[in-house]
Parts: sequence; C-alpha cells; structure tokens
Amino acid sequence: MPELASLTIQQMSQKIASGELKPSDLMEAHVARIDEIESCVRAWAHYDPNIALMSARLADTRPIDHPLYGIPFGVKDIIDAVVYPTEHGTPIHQGNQSRRDAACVALLKEAGSIVLGKAVTTELAHFHPGKTRNPHALTRTPGGSSSGSAAAVAAGMVPFALGTQTTGSVLRPASYCGVYGFKPSFGDVNRSGVFECVSSFDTVGWFTRCVDDVEIVRQALVRLPSKPLEAKELGQLRIGLFRGSNWESAESTTQKAIEQAASTLARSGAKVTDVATPDWFLDLAEHHRRVAGFEFARAISFERVEHPNLLSRKLVDGRCEDGLQLSYTDYIAAQEALARARLEFAELMQDCDVLLTPSAPGEAWEGQSATGDPVFNKAWTALHVPAISIPAFKGPSGLPVGLQLVGRFRRDRELLETASIAAAALDVSTAASAKL
Amino acid sequence: MPELASLTIQQMSQKIASGELKPSDLMEAHVARIDEIESCVRAWAHYDPNIALMSARLADTRPIDHPLYGIPFGVKDIIDAVVYPTEHGTPIHQGNQSRRDAACVALLKEAGSIVLGKAVTTELAHFHPGKTRNPHALTRTPGGSSSGSAAAVAAGMVPFALGTQTTGSVLRPASYCGVYGFKPSFGDVNRSGVFECVSSFDTVGWFTRCVDDVEIVRQALVRLPSKPLEAKELGQLRIGLFRGSNWESAESTTQKAIEQAASTLARSGAKVTDVATPDWFLDLAEHHRRVAGFEFARAISFERVEHPNLLSRKLVDGRCEDGLQLSYTDYIAAQEALARARLEFAELMQDCDVLLTPSAPGEAWEGQSATGDPVFNKAWTALHVPAISIPAFKGPSGLPVGLQLVGRFRRDRELLETASIAAAALDVSTAASAKL
Repeated sequence: MPELASLTIQQMSQKIASGELKPSDLMEAHVARIDEIESCVRAWAHYDPNIALMSARLADTRPIDHPLYGIPFGVKDIIDAVVYPTEHGTPIHQGNQSRRDAACVALLKEAGSIVLGKAVTTELAHFHPGKTRNPHALTRTPGGSSSGSAAAVAAGMVPFALGTQTTGSVLRPASYCGVYGFKPSFGDVNRSGVFECVSSFDTVGWFTRCVDDVEIVRQALVRLPSKPLEAKELGQLRIGLFRGSNWESAESTTQKAIEQAASTLARSGAKVTDVATPDWFLDLAEHHRRVAGFEFARAISFERVEHPNLLSRKLVDGRCEDGLQLSYTDYIAAQEALARARLEFAELMQDCDVLLTPSAPGEAWEGQSATGDPVFNKAWTALHVPAISIPAFKGPSGLPVGLQLVGRFRRDRELLETASIAAAALDVSTAASAKL
Repeated sequence: MPELASLTIQQMSQKIASGELKPSDLMEAHVARIDEIESCVRAWAHYDPNIALMSARLADTRPIDHPLYGIPFGVKDIIDAVVYPTEHGTPIHQGNQSRRDAACVALLKEAGSIVLGKAVTTELAHFHPGKTRNPHALTRTPGGSSSGSAAAVAAGMVPFALGTQTTGSVLRPASYCGVYGFKPSFGDVNRSGVFECVSSFDTVGWFTRCVDDVEIVRQALVRLPSKPLEAKELGQLRIGLFRGSNWESAESTTQKAIEQAASTLARSGAKVTDVATPDWFLDLAEHHRRVAGFEFARAISFERVEHPNLLSRKLVDGRCEDGLQLSYTDYIAAQEALARARLEFAELMQDCDVLLTPSAPGEAWEGQSATGDPVFNKAWTALHVPAISIPAFKGPSGLPVGLQLVGRFRRDRELLETASIAAAALDVSTAASAKL
C-alpha cells in the first residue's frame, strides 16, 4: 500500500478514471502511510482518518469529472478548512474551529479533491519552527513556513499539499524536502480564508511530485479548464543562468550543481546565457524587508496587542519590531522601488524565458531551532513572479537540493512547460518518497 | 444626552482629555441614542449595550494617550471583532463567532477606541440589501454595502464607523446618508480579518462627521503618529472639475450643485480648471466589472459551492456568473489595462491636486430593494486612489447629496487637507445627526 501512496496525481487519477482504484482505496493507502510514519515526521497539525475516509467513501459514489477527483491533499494550518481548526502555528489560536473553507480549499473540493488534514506551519507563517522534521533526515529542519505541507508530500503521506509564500516559504521547504514546490504569480490564486501576513507578497503555493501535477492543481485553483501541459522542445528555450548577488551564499556544491545543470541544458539544445546581476536587484532584499515588516506588524495587531507573551521573541523582536519602527515614507519608497523593479524585470525577461538559479544555499540545516535561509527566494516573491523548485540535486550529505526556475509574471503555464522539459533533460524523475 | 452623541471625535476627545467627560458617560449617551432610534434605523447586526458599557467603564480607569481614547465606533459586519459574530450579511454565516479582531479593529483598540457593535452589511458586501434604512428618510435606502455603518453615523448612534469599498460601498452610502465617507489609497489600511471580496480592489474605509475626524481615524488605522491636519490656503489649490463620461447619469440638480461648488471655490481663490474625460477613463467601468467578477466568483467559492440556495439571485446571476464566464486572458487584459490607467491618472494629476466630481447621481433611491448606483465611485476604486465624500448639498427632496474629491495615490493626507479647506469654503458644517 505505501507504493500506492507514492504515485503522482496523474498516476492516481488514471487509476481512478479506469476504475482500478476507488477514492477510498487511495485514502486508505494514505492513512496507512501516515499511521506508519507520522510519529517520526510530525507533519500534521490536525488530522482525523475517520473524516478523511468518510469523505473518500462518499466520493466513491459520485461521478468522476476532474483529474483531481478523489485525490487527497494537505492544507497548511494558516488556511481555513471546515471540520478542522486553523491554529496558525500559535497557542493564541488553539481550537479556532473553521466554519468555512478558504477559497483555495473550496476550489480544490469543487474539483473533487479531498482534504486529508491540516499541515504544520511555523508560528504565524514566520520563522519560529513547528514540530515537523525533515523526512530525509529527521535531525534536520524541513524548512518553513510551509513545513508540514512539504514534509507530508516528501514522506508519501499525501500527493500534494497547499502552502503559502511571503518570503521563501514554499520554495525553500521544497528544496530541503526533495519535492516540487511552486509559487504562482502574485494574485492568481485567491487568498480568501488564508491568514494574512503581508498582503503585498502573500501567495498560495503548493508541493507535488512532478511538474505536470503542479499544473493540474494550478488549473483547479485558478479555476481554469483542465488541459495538460504541452511538450516544448529544448531548442526553443532561452534559459538565463542567474547567479545573482547572493551567489556567495550558496554552498560550493550547489554552485557547481547549478552550473552543471546549465551546461547540460545547453548541450541538450537550449540557448543558455549568463545573466548579469542588474543594479536594481541589489536592493530587493531590503525593499522586501521593509514592506514585509510594515505590513506584518499591522496584520498581526490582535496577536501583538492582546497576546504579546504568547508570541516568540524571533517574531516580536524581528519582523514585527522592524515594521513598527519603519516610517510610512520609507514603506512607500520601498513599494515604489518594487513597482519599478517589476517593470525592469519584465524588460530583462525579453531575452530569456526563464532564469535558472538555486532554490536554497544547500541542504536542509541541521537541528530544529531554525527553518533555513530564504536568500534565494525573497527577490522573486517581491517581484511577484512565478517560481518552481525542482528536486534536481543531492548535496554532500546525500540530501536534496533544489534547482529554481523563475518565469515571467502571469506566464505560469509557460514556466511549467519549460520546467517540464528541463526536468526531463536533467534526468530528474518523479520525486520519490523519503525512505522512512 | 443625544446632543453629546452628535459631537465630532475631536469634540468628544477634548472633553475626555479635559476630564469633563468619562468614556462611560460618552458610551451611555450613545446607548441612549441607540435605544431611542434603532428600531427605526436598524443599523446594527450585533450590539450589546452591556459589553459596550463594560468596556467603557474599564477605559475610565486607564490613562488617556490618544485622540481616539474612549471613543466608540461601529464595525461593518464583514470585519472580525471579538465577542461579536461576523455574519457577512448572509444566513450562511449565522452565529459565526469571531475569536480575533481584524487588524483595523485591533489598531483602533490599540489607540483606545471602543467597539460599540457590528453594523449591517449587504449580503457578502455585494448589492443585495440588509435591513438598514436611511435615517434621513426611512422609506429610502441608506446605500450599500456599508449600509449600517453610514446610517449609524448619520443617526448619531456612533461618531465613526468602519466600512469597506470594492465598488462604491463607502462613498455612495456617505452621500445618501449625509456624512463624510473616506476610501483611502488601496493598500494603506491592513485587511487582515476583513472578508475578502475582490482582493485587487477591497479597501477599508470609514464614516465620520468632519474631515479632521477622518484623519484622526486614518492615523490610527495606518498606525502613524497623531498629527492634526495642517491648514492649507485656497489660493494654493488646483482643483479639476471632472464631469467624466458618466455626467449624464447625474441628476440635473446634482450637476448644478457640483458646478456651483466649482464656481464658489474659484471665487474663493482656488485655481479651478475643467478636466476633460481622457480616453482611458471610458473603459474603467468595464475593467472593474471583469476584475471584480473574476475574483469575487473565486473568493466566495465556499458559499457558491456549498450553499448556492442561500445566496441571492442578484449575487449568483450577477457578479458571480459574470466572473465564472470570464476567461483568464480577459481577466489579465483588464488587470493590465488598469495598471496602465493608474500611470495615466498620475500623469493627469500633475496639473491638479484633486478632482471635484459627484459622489452619487442624486439623493438616495426610494425603497429598500436596491442600494443605489455606484457609477461615480467605481473608477476611483479601480484606480486605487483616495476619495472623500463631503455632505455638501441637498437634493430636490431636501435629502443629502455628496461632493466627491479624488486625490493622488498615497497622498491621502494632502487630499484631506484640501477637503478640509474646501468644505470650509463651501460652508459645509459638521454633519448633523438626522432628525428622528
């Protein structure tokens, strides 16, 4: 049964459509897998196998009308889903029962997908870790803030899971956990019912086991007609190798792996060019810090004012204090600089279809006290552009490291078509479940 | 006591600071006013005088440190506030108890302001009306969707109240109810805990009895230092009379009143020019319709999928169906056109400080089956710019009609300083409570 729980959405969907599998068979396989390994991985904040099985048995009786029909999914615990509480990773919201599905959850359910449970988030989707461990190395962080969602997919507990990204909260855990992670263009996926951290950046993203699955989920979430990715040819692709000003933050093995991937893609026929770091790129991290701080400190006013002692020091003394200190003038200056940088990025992308860059500096950090470094993610979040992490490499300890492809704003499907062919050319297979 | 309940925030604040009034005295006056007239006006969705009085008595014992200290306010019932439910104007969310204050509510409470109750909204802040009546003419609509908030301020039940605007839901009810209504620049006021309708447009706004009060509330909501508006001179002002392509929708008395106001301001020393309707303005209503439909139909997926029979036909067959029919390509085209129009608007505003235009076609509509016409509001909402409605005129039936001033993006304080001097020059006094 665990093998069944490691299939891609596409594979599961075919078995359901052919009648080989019922939704309840699939759910039973996932429940068995969770029983087996959840005590090690700790991916779930709230999970009730009886509810999941009951929903699946109901699905057994209804017509199959979508590639997501009968497919279970996990939901980051800052996203509302009925039956379960939404605790936002903080004791402040313990027992906060949801009476409504977030739009993203409702849209997936409309497509026939079934909520398996609520996945662990860091405190208010910021840096203070939850209980989840990296399924590839239980002593290490899974990354954050979408920790449980990434770990659950990596461990074969669910074929896809929703996360959110405000800085690097989808791409980084995807890299650390060896799964595909996707952050769509800002604004494409509705955020109703998702805890607001930084309205200017917050984006619903998700984790899967292959690129095609990313697109299946995207179409349901944006409520587009289902249509598989079309095959591109490598010869059509213009790939920009983007080391960027943070290149020295990457471990040397990551640098080598990225450069080798660029060579491999060039040898396979893609047009690969080096993209120099533009001046406007240098300040993006600081603009991100200012906007994120200003908005976050205001968004969590209830928690900040009513329950300061239940918040972590990392949150209170970090982004929150940052944001309370910043003047409105400096906030607006950062917003205006970002608006200009988005236009500059569009210019830059006239010469290439995607940028190739690391997803993270290297393997997941040792220990559970921090969730790693989003240095390779925050610029793209601030620019609002789509980005995917492909589990392309192994680091020096044999643990996953992701390759990141960054696309044009609102050209998410093009990015995914490119990612699909690039992953094939790099011989990256379906993300396998961690051995546990 | 009713007189006390008709003061401006500034006046109440001075009495509290001097010790002439305690917060509980003020709250008692408001409770008395509500007792007297709520059965006619029906402004409140949830209101408990004991909770309000208890909060005020607690405030009596604490240090006064902000102009909003001890001042009661109303909260539109799509905005979370602890103790009360948030029912979003639909039976679907009956009894939906809030366990958290929305950021805007928490920020006002941080400043010392006290929640008086939850004000009636239309169904999901769309067009299907709630139970509220216009306090100036009980047979007429108060406007929507922030119906209860506008009516409560107009009737002297609370000195200010929060609403939201996605199309014209603050400016229109302000015009119909004869109070000041303000929609700030998009993004300035945090939306955490506010029901999401159309993320690209939704803006928290509010109703007051004078321009200075608008700024007091704005500073608390954006969490800026308190600083009174500075007096401008009319001679410094460049005012653009903007009839726009919807001018024919305005009643002739409204047209005359706006043109007379422009003349009066010019005679008083302001530089008033006619601003022709630019080409890009003509399509704004259609772009607004497309973006609003696309996002709304997705935001309310839970209600749409799980409870279609509890939604009004107006909502399901209108904006919702609109949004489900629209293609992603058309949605993005509208978004891109709006982004260009915002740059065009900034260009246009190099020659004037504010635009002068009607807030609404005329007086509030007769009857309770519709909430009036947002034709003079939606363009500014779509452009993300700040706008204020000043209760400057009376229509043919002696009912209020608003004058709208529109400012530059993120120059809200400048707009309010202009509005303050313009209101004085037009001899518009503090909005008086409706006679009831």
